Parts: sequence; structure tokens; C-alpha cells
Amino acid sequence: MISVKEAKKIILNSTQNFRVEEIPFIKSVDRILKENILADRDFPPFNRVSMDGIAIDFTSFKNGQRSFKIEGIQGAGSEQISLNNPENCIEVMTGAVLPNNTNTVIRYEDVTIESGIVTINIDEIKDAQNVHPKGKDRKIGDLLIKKNTKISASEVGVLATVGKSLVKVAKQPKVMIVSTGDELVGVDEIPLEHQIRRSNVFTLVSLLERLHIPSETAHITDDKPILKQKIERYLQEYDVLLFSGAVSKGKFDFLPEVFDELGVEKLFHKITQRPGKPFFYGKTSRCNVFGFPGNPISTFVNCLAYFYPWYYKSVGVEVEEETAILSEDFVFKPSLTYFLQVKLSYKFGHLVATPITGNGSGDLASLVNADAFIQLPNDKNEFKSGEVFPIIRYR
Amino acid sequence: MISVKEAKKIILNSTQNFRVEEIPFIKSVDRILKENILADRDFPPFNRVSMDGIAIDFTSFKNGQRSFKIEGIQGAGSEQISLNNPENCIEVMTGAVLPNNTNTVIRYEDVTIESGIVTINIDEIKDAQNVHPKGKDRKIGDLLIKKNTKISASEVGVLATVGKSLVKVAKQPKVMIVSTGDELVGVDEIPLEHQIRRSNVFTLVSLLERLHIPSETAHITDDKPILKQKIERYLQEYDVLLFSGAVSKGKFDFLPEVFDELGVEKLFHKITQRPGKPFFYGKTSRCNVFGFPGNPISTFVNCLAYFYPWYYKSVGVEVEEETAILSEDFVFKPSLTYFLQVKLSYKFGHLVATPITGNGSGDLASLVNADAFIQLPNDKNEFKSGEVFPIIRYR
Repeated sequence: MISVKEAKKIILNSTQNFRVEEIPFIKSVDRILKENILADRDFPPFNRVSMDGIAIDFTSFKNGQRSFKIEGIQGAGSEQISLNNPENCIEVMTGAVLPNNTNTVIRYEDVTIESGIVTINIDEIKDAQNVHPKGKDRKIGDLLIKKNTKISASEVGVLATVGKSLVKVAKQPKVMIVSTGDELVGVDEIPLEHQIRRSNVFTLVSLLERLHIPSETAHITDDKPILKQKIERYLQEYDVLLFSGAVSKGKFDFLPEVFDELGVEKLFHKITQRPGKPFFYGKTSRCNVFGFPGNPISTFVNCLAYFYPWYYKSVGVEVEEETAILSEDFVFKPSLTYFLQVKLSYKFGHLVATPITGNGSGDLASLVNADAFIQLPNDKNEFKSGEVFPIIRYR
Repeated sequence: MISVKEAKKIILNSTQNFRVEEIPFIKSVDRILKENILADRDFPPFNRVSMDGIAIDFTSFKNGQRSFKIEGIQGAGSEQISLNNPENCIEVMTGAVLPNNTNTVIRYEDVTIESGIVTINIDEIKDAQNVHPKGKDRKIGDLLIKKNTKISASEVGVLATVGKSLVKVAKQPKVMIVSTGDELVGVDEIPLEHQIRRSNVFTLVSLLERLHIPSETAHITDDKPILKQKIERYLQEYDVLLFSGAVSKGKFDFLPEVFDELGVEKLFHKITQRPGKPFFYGKTSRCNVFGFPGNPISTFVNCLAYFYPWYYKSVGVEVEEETAILSEDFVFKPSLTYFLQVKLSYKFGHLVATPITGNGSGDLASLVNADAFIQLPNDKNEFKSGEVFPIIRYR
């Protein structure tokens, strides 16, 4: 039996490299970028008009001129034109190139136009105003997005801007999720009195979907030869196996023996925590094996507490630890790390965690009323309102 | 020109009902549940063994008996068996039905087994221990998940448990995203000196993907008859149109006129905010029209600040306002609500927002360095470190 801290350390020391693939940028949201993205030109790429109005030579204004004849129009997307007479002006649109021989833009709100003559109605005009100079935001070659960034909508916009229609991202692991337990029947079936429907595999599929990891699922009956035969094949074909059930002390909890016989190196079995204590973790040369205990909340919390960090480290992402403030006193006597279900709320910039006490690790429905687990350390029994602990969100 | 508050009120008063559809439960993550989910049986559905070990009749233990002959095994998924002789025991596995004529489970850790005889090694045994009684978590007919819940992995598990292989969720709106602007070229193209690549439509596609809303995209040149012809068709075919650009004061900003000519009722045009001031919002009987200003950050922040709440209200979800603590003093003089880009961090249960100052609304790349916008009200110019304001996250 090892501590949560040791378990996490072991897991983070046995990450995999899933390698890199190139995908269309528009499909890359929530994937992990595996190349640096540089500016392919200056941004803006030209002296860019940033207000609709007129462009003038500021010298004329400084010399007292207030009326300007319109010489032409510079729309966005047109090639740069030139002002021929410095006492005239050019109408310009947001996003256009600033016309040659002009340097200052006055917005329509501040002028009157009559018979092709623009009159400026204000006295405060600054040299070069309403012009976004070439290269002001970024210079060609500047680093725009760092490798190992998790791609969001903002990165997608930048990828489009620099023409990265294909982008290198971390490949996703090939994952098989296996449930065991002869009491389980399909979701479409009507269970007999002593049976229940499968649910953990679907919870796991959904938790992996949050990471955009596709997965396959299987159910194996509690029959050792069949378990061994199927798992032998899975170990060769998948990068990750997630199990739910059959890792505890029961007569039919064959998984630890089967893993041993198939050459899975046991890295640990059992963690001083509740729920989720009899968690088995091991690996072969190509495959990582997460044997979650079969109770619904045990599977759920262990996937979040161990598989998620393992995945993020594998793809090169550093995840900042989130903390919350306990809203009421809580007592937990056993000398175990306790993952307490909590409802989160925001109060004046504080993240407040209110305990939601279910009926133990079998009470899946209690997860619906909570948003996260707060991790209460095993070296204390009394946790006071106002104390701060790490949390793991699942919504 | 109206305030951010008024704009939001108008938007939330013109929501749509997208109606309901039935989809496979395993595809329902992040969709909005449109039915109450009730327990189809008691949970647990039987007196459930919650530890691997032996089941006895507690009376025998109370009477001093410490050794019990094993009469049989009750595995998970087997029909309930009965203890024939109250001085014997039955081996039981986690998840099994508690055998008839037994009421208490003693875990393997606390017994010794030799030649078919179990000896209990501890004196502290409680009546009915390690049994999870039928119906303790939930009774048949109890409400497990409320209508209008956003479905996460935990709800998926509950849906599986109660056999909801098909589930009613809010249908998604049919959305068309349109960019305008003759300066824009495709992502695969090499822009000329006066051109830039399209990026806003892809940012919007990605922001909608976060809500699991599929969308289509189109680009229309700044040509009024073509704009009018295409938009007329879109207004008939889509529930929502999102535009980026052509809503300001430019010579080629035809959208407001086109909307007017096509019978789009203008609900407002321009909000006292930065960025994103010239935002146009209107509707027809079937379609809502969001005309976002063309600058990348304007489009981005308006989609988050207005389209997101409109969508959530339309599908019946209440979103809690999140707040954060400003990490440093900030000055913003104009009498406008300012959506300031911030980087978020967690410090002792506090959510801290550090300003990331870009070069204005055209500086898309600056979004990459931030996580959220903090909303600074327009009735103040100086914002102090430690003050708390609402935030809008985008990662």
C-alpha cells in the first residue's frame, strides 16, 4: 500500500510518448500542439487603417488646413494607392493599407463631407492617429504559439492567420476500456434482481472524450482463461488498457494474477486513499495498465486523479493545480487520503467547495450533485471551514 | 448606443427554442438534458455485499461463535442463495446479493481460512456491517438527474445505470458563420501585401464547437447585391447567423442596410464597450442575427459575452457568473465597459486575474497569452489590485 503522492510520482515516471501527427488546423481544438508557431510576416503586415474615415498628410493639418478634397478611396483588400496632392485626402476603410503619402486617419464621426470636400470638425488630431503600424503586434519570425500548448479557439485563429492549414499535434493513445463482473448486463437489457447495468466503461469513455481521446470498450466475464486470452491480445494492440473491477480480494478478482502471468510489471497495487484504494497500476514495454476498482466512484476518481495527469505529462502539458476553500467543517477519521465530492461556487473571486456526502463509493448518482473532488490529506482527521485543499474538477 | 447590461438583457429576451431530439446516451456529453431521469429501481437494487469476505448470521457471532464452516459461495451476478445452517457462513464477493439468512459481512482481512473453516480474528464486528442495504442510495422513482442539466461523464454513468440508451436533449441550432471583407484570402493561400488570411470564421467555428454546435461557414465579398441575395437565403435556412465584419461606418459596411432591406428587426447596433463596440444584433421570426465587428478580438469577445449566454438561455441552462481578483492596478479612461484580457491563476483558493495587454482589438496573437476577459465597468477609470470583477473564460 503506497500513498497518493508516491502513486502519482510512479505514474508520472512511466509516461509514454504517443508521437506526433499532422491534422487539419480546424480539427485541432483541445489537441496538444507539437511545433512552435511563428509569424510568417509582420503583424499587421502593412500600415493598417484602424478606423473608417479619411487619410491625410498630417503636415497639412498642422499648417492649419481644415478642408480636404477627396482624391480617391482605399478599401480593405485593395492595392495601396497614393495621395498625389498633399492638400487632398483619401477615404479609407478599416483594414485597408494606409495610402502612400498619408500618415494620419480622421474618423468619419469627426468630419463633415459635402460635394467631395471633407471638413474636419475637431482640433485635436494627433500625428499618425488611427494607424496600426506594420509589425507593431508581431515581427516576422516571432514565436506566436509555443509547442505543447493545448489548442483553443484563440490558437485556431492564429493558425489560420499564419496559414497553418495542417498542424502537428500529439497523437492520441490507442485505448481499450474493459469492464469485468458477472453481475453486469448491457444498457439496453432489463437486469434480473441480482444484476446491474454496465456503467463504468461509459463513464470512462466520456472522461476520455473530454481529452478528445477515442476509445474502444469490451466486457469480459469473470473467467480466468478467457480474461487471460483477451488481455494478452489487448496488451499487444493498445497503448493503454483501462479496467474497471476485479482488482480487489474477491474469489473472482483474477486481474492481478492474470497481469502477472502475462508479464505486466506491477508498479503498485493499493493506495492509502478512499474511494479507490485497490487500484492496480502496471506496464509492459508498449502498454500502460490502469486497473481501477469496480465501484463507480472509485473508477471515476482514479481516472481523474491518475490517468488524466499521466496523459497530460505524456503529451507534454503542465497542468496547474487548482485549489478551493472548504465551506464547512468536515471530519474523516481513517488514515487515508479522502477524495470528497464537492459542489463548487464562486464568491468574490474565491472558489468555494461545499461537501456533497453520498452513500459511499457505490453511489454513482451522488456525482451528479457535485462538480469536483477535494483532496483531503491523510495526516489529519479534522478539516475546518476556510481551509484550502487541491481540487479535481470533472465539469 | 446601449450599455453592456442593456444589450445582454435584450439578447436574453430574444432567445429561441431549438426543440428536443433523442440521441444515444453515449453521444450526449456536453448536451443539455431535456427530460427528468428517474431511478428505474432501488439503488442498490438488492442488499449488496460491499466487501469481499464471508456472510454470517450476526446472532451466532453475538452468541460467541468464532468459527464457521463454509457452506457455499455467493459471487456477484449469481442468483441469491440461502444459508441453511445459521452456524455456517457463505463466502461473498463485492457486488453480490447478500445471501438469504445472513445479515453481516466480515472481510477476508479479518479472518483465517483453513480446511473449509473460517475463524474470525477480531472481536469488533457490527451487526449488518459491510452490507449496502437495498434502496439506501435512491428509491425507485427518485429524481436522479434534473431536466436542463448539462451532461457530463457522471450523468452518462447514471443514464447507463437506469437503461436510458436513448436520451432527450436540446437540439442544436443550425448556424451559418459568414465573413466579409475583400482583404481576406483562404488559409491555404499566400496573401498579397494588402491582404490577410481569414481567421475569424474559424475562431467562431471553434468557439461553437466548445458548445458542441456544428456550423457551416461562408465568405461573401463586399458587394451589396451579392450580400443581399445570399443573406436572404441564409435567413430562411438557418436558426442563427453569425457575421464578422461590415457592421461599422465604412463605405463597404453594407450589412446594416442589407439587414434592414431584408426585414431583419434591429434590436441594437453599438454597445458602450471596448473591444467590440459596433456589434449589430437583430432577428427575424425564425433567425437570430449576430453581426460581430471584424476585428479578431471584437468578434471573439462578443461571441463569448453575447452568443454564449443567448445559447445557454435558449437551451434552458443557468450559468453561474464567475469572478476573479485583479492582480494589479489598471487604468482605462474611456467611458466604456472594458473587456480586458487576463491570465488566470489559482492561489490558495483565490482566482487571480493578471492583465495581458495586447496592441488593441486587431492583435489576435495576444489572446494566446491569456485565458479569459475580465469585465471592467464603465463607471470607473481606475481599477485597483484586489478588486473583484466578473470574468469570461475561453479555456
